[in-house]
Amino acid sequence: MKIGIDMMGGDFAPLEAIKGIQHYVEEGNAHLVLIGDEDKITPLLSEYNIPGERYTVVHAPQVIGMHEHPTRALKEKQQSSIAVGFHLLASGKMDAFISAGNTGAMLVGSLYSLKPIEGVLRPTISTIIPKENGSTGLLLDVGLNSDCKPEQLNQFAVMGTVYAQQILGIDNPRVALLNIGEEEGKGNLLAQATYPLLKENKHINFIGNVEGRDVLIDKADIIVCDGFSGNIILKLAESLFEITGRKEIHHEYFDRFNFENYGGTPVLGISKPVIIGHGISKGKAFKNMIVVAQKMIEKDVMEKLHTELIN
Amino acid sequence: MKIGIDMMGGDFAPLEAIKGIQHYVEEGNAHLVLIGDEDKITPLLSEYNIPGERYTVVHAPQVIGMHEHPTRALKEKQQSSIAVGFHLLASGKMDAFISAGNTGAMLVGSLYSLKPIEGVLRPTISTIIPKENGSTGLLLDVGLNSDCKPEQLNQFAVMGTVYAQQILGIDNPRVALLNIGEEEGKGNLLAQATYPLLKENKHINFIGNVEGRDVLIDKADIIVCDGFSGNIILKLAESLFEITGRKEIHHEYFDRFNFENYGGTPVLGISKPVIIGHGISKGKAFKNMIVVAQKMIEKDVMEKLHTELIN
Repeated sequence: MKIGIDMMGGDFAPLEAIKGIQHYVEEGNAHLVLIGDEDKITPLLSEYNIPGERYTVVHAPQVIGMHEHPTRALKEKQQSSIAVGFHLLASGKMDAFISAGNTGAMLVGSLYSLKPIEGVLRPTISTIIPKENGSTGLLLDVGLNSDCKPEQLNQFAVMGTVYAQQILGIDNPRVALLNIGEEEGKGNLLAQATYPLLKENKHINFIGNVEGRDVLIDKADIIVCDGFSGNIILKLAESLFEITGRKEIHHEYFDRFNFENYGGTPVLGISKPVIIGHGISKGKAFKNMIVVAQKMIEKDVMEKLHTELIN
Repeated sequence: MKIGIDMMGGDFAPLEAIKGIQHYVEEGNAHLVLIGDEDKITPLLSEYNIPGERYTVVHAPQVIGMHEHPTRALKEKQQSSIAVGFHLLASGKMDAFISAGNTGAMLVGSLYSLKPIEGVLRPTISTIIPKENGSTGLLLDVGLNSDCKPEQLNQFAVMGTVYAQQILGIDNPRVALLNIGEEEGKGNLLAQATYPLLKENKHINFIGNVEGRDVLIDKADIIVCDGFSGNIILKLAESLFEITGRKEIHHEYFDRFNFENYGGTPVLGISKPVIIGHGISKGKAFKNMIVVAQKMIEKDVMEKLHTELIN
């Protein structure tokens, strides 16, 4: 099993990626393909005593900056760590790809270098939501699909279910539809049309609508929504961590809004595992991302998604 | 000036309404029309020493419960405080109507008993958002219009501006569009189509897009969005007050998420002031609602909305 890592992605590259790798190699067994500027990576690999047999370095002299235009950057910087990573992944030279770099470029690469899983209308990205009672839930889509059709939301529910079962370890995850009322028939046209699809869907454990007030409590394990609403919630939740930090409101609950803890989000619905980390990812987040990629390969999440979606 | 109050609306009716009236009559000068069950109201009016010349009681023997179906309840309970209130308002026997009762019934009454202001495509409701720096902002729509057209959002921006200027005392309020990216052209189809309208709108001070992370910081005074997104944010914000309360996270910032403090939201775009309070409204909230209604009448907010929207 070969897992590729963009060593140049994120605010603290490549140092924090190296730290994550150091933690990972102690317990994980995948071979790591380290993509980036060799001159910057090699000294750190020695310094942090990463065993040579555990990795291969692939030199990529260019870097796509965090604020570059995704499509343009990917096209113009063919020798960037992200472009090289997708090339290696698409050509089968590695089995998964991880980056904390330019999110847009990672999404563009995922959508255009890789094939969607057969039967998938649109891939999706999710976020972990820390719940009041200490558990976590999954919210999706969080921005890849700003306009959605009911059939897409219905697929997000299935993909979220497989991910929650296989990777988050939730046996029979409760799926809810984000809405502005509890009863069937409430909401905007999208929610009204999605509800009956979810209700009839045999691949999920649908529990009905949830409202904004239910997002942070343990009512559902998976909340399905369009990428516009989901992205608003995700960024609002991220801002809570920052605001409470600035106001020095110290509480374990708000610490859990530190999205660095959760180790990135996979792009669900594409043929190979791609994990996108937060720009602020540190060592722990990188390690978690590698672990998620390993699990996705081991449990063959892609094949399970395929099976659930086409039957 | 006559302001009508639904004495039977809210979780603590009619006692907390009476307490609000007691505070109001000390500083406000409107004549109050108290609508509800005479037998319940009259003893409290004596007990709280409300001067007889400041109010008129209108007996309404029925009550619409908080969970009744709005349209059905309004139709079947013609003698309810809400139905009687809208009848008095529509027939010109009073100048404004306030209730902390069934929100749905208040909205249905507003939309179907009263005329929209000439030129208004759809009335809207807003919420106050407490900002990190101590200021407050306005978010609209928060649920009256779950599917919106760009022209409606453009009008919400104007209505929010008039309200912020006249009632919240913000001179030249900064208007932003809720979106999932900062640049023009980002977002879902609605946001993409709304941006140019806001940019060209001479009646507002448009500052561009804001994201979920900006909702709680002081980047814009008014954030415009569809009622689905707005309602999700409103209810999520309300839940923060509840969660921090349950977790005993005491901080002035989260105290400000107690929506009881803000005294209800007007239905903007209809011909007369209607203020809808939270079901949990207590005395302070009732008093604030009466004050808002008085200001809306005094400053002739309806006429100003009309002028801004048709020019």
